[in-house]
Amino acid sequence: MSGLMSISEVNRMPYEQFISIFGNVVEHCSLCAAAVWCQRPFSDVSQLHEAMSTFLDQQPLAGKEGVLRLHPDLAGKLAQSRGLTSDSAKEQTSAGLFDMTEKERQTMNNLNQEYKEKYGFPFVICARENKKEAILKGLETRLKNNSEEEALTGVAEVKKICRLRLLDIVDPSSSTKSAL
Amino acid sequence: MSGLMSISEVNRMPYEQFISIFGNVVEHCSLCAAAVWCQRPFSDVSQLHEAMSTFLDQQPLAGKEGVLRLHPDLAGKLAQSRGLTSDSAKEQTSAGLFDMTEKERQTMNNLNQEYKEKYGFPFVICARENKKEAILKGLETRLKNNSEEEALTGVAEVKKICRLRLLDIVDPSSSTKSAL
Repeated sequence: MSGLMSISEVNRMPYEQFISIFGNVVEHCSLCAAAVWCQRPFSDVSQLHEAMSTFLDQQPLAGKEGVLRLHPDLAGKLAQSRGLTSDSAKEQTSAGLFDMTEKERQTMNNLNQEYKEKYGFPFVICARENKKEAILKGLETRLKNNSEEEALTGVAEVKKICRLRLLDIVDPSSSTKSAL
Repeated sequence: MSGLMSISEVNRMPYEQFISIFGNVVEHCSLCAAAVWCQRPFSDVSQLHEAMSTFLDQQPLAGKEGVLRLHPDLAGKLAQSRGLTSDSAKEQTSAGLFDMTEKERQTMNNLNQEYKEKYGFPFVICARENKKEAILKGLETRLKNNSEEEALTGVAEVKKICRLRLLDIVDPSSSTKSAL
């Protein structure tokens, strides 16, 4: 028993349940789940993830930047005041972001600030696939990109975060094909 | 003293304040406000509304349908259980939707249901520009459209709702030109 739901259960859900369960797989962006809902039935969780990725890819540049702007700063004020969504709090914990020295926190805050001033949106990285050292290094490296490259890089990270959040909910071995 | 804010105040806001004030001018769709934020300074509230309208127009069809899906049913279960956003509750009240006979409510629920089954998204109309009789007539008429026409018609209503919500917040006579 994995405790995960099967894709068939997902396909049978009424819209209200779908949006309450999947509304935050892209942080604070329930439009993403709302947009893909009409594409049911999904054959498996990969296909659901692809539908969401396509939605993100089809956003105009302002929309992509908006998606990034809906994300909190890593190890920022929201984290310190416990104002993060539970998804974000778990992810930032797993990267060790709640376990930084004062110096590391200061470095991260300075780089985050520099990043936001340069691009107009916060630095987004899949925290579950990176530890704090890799995140600090990523911030420094990505600060060299131009604004459009960086919006695309950020959205690619959003897709990774989305995939892991989906895998927290839906059993990846379930498929409508095997269920027939 | 109108109690409204000037466009200059809007332009000076930090992002967090902007999203908390404008995040629901398109119902439950904070991505819209997040997307247009980088286009400041706005010369007046009309230009802010145009930026939001452009964002809606640039959505792929699935995104437009998603925007509609984030809206509640008119006089639906959420209204009866007081689960509406305060914006929606005010608008539905002004249209007289809390003041319907049992027969009218039943007719509206049946038409809403038929509409959602046909299109896969709820019927959206600017309630402040229509009274319950016009809304019932609109439902009947619009049920004759095809799905894509209806998504566009719905989004046109979303823009009207958005405009009136913006005018509840920002003084329409304020302009960055006169402020110089």
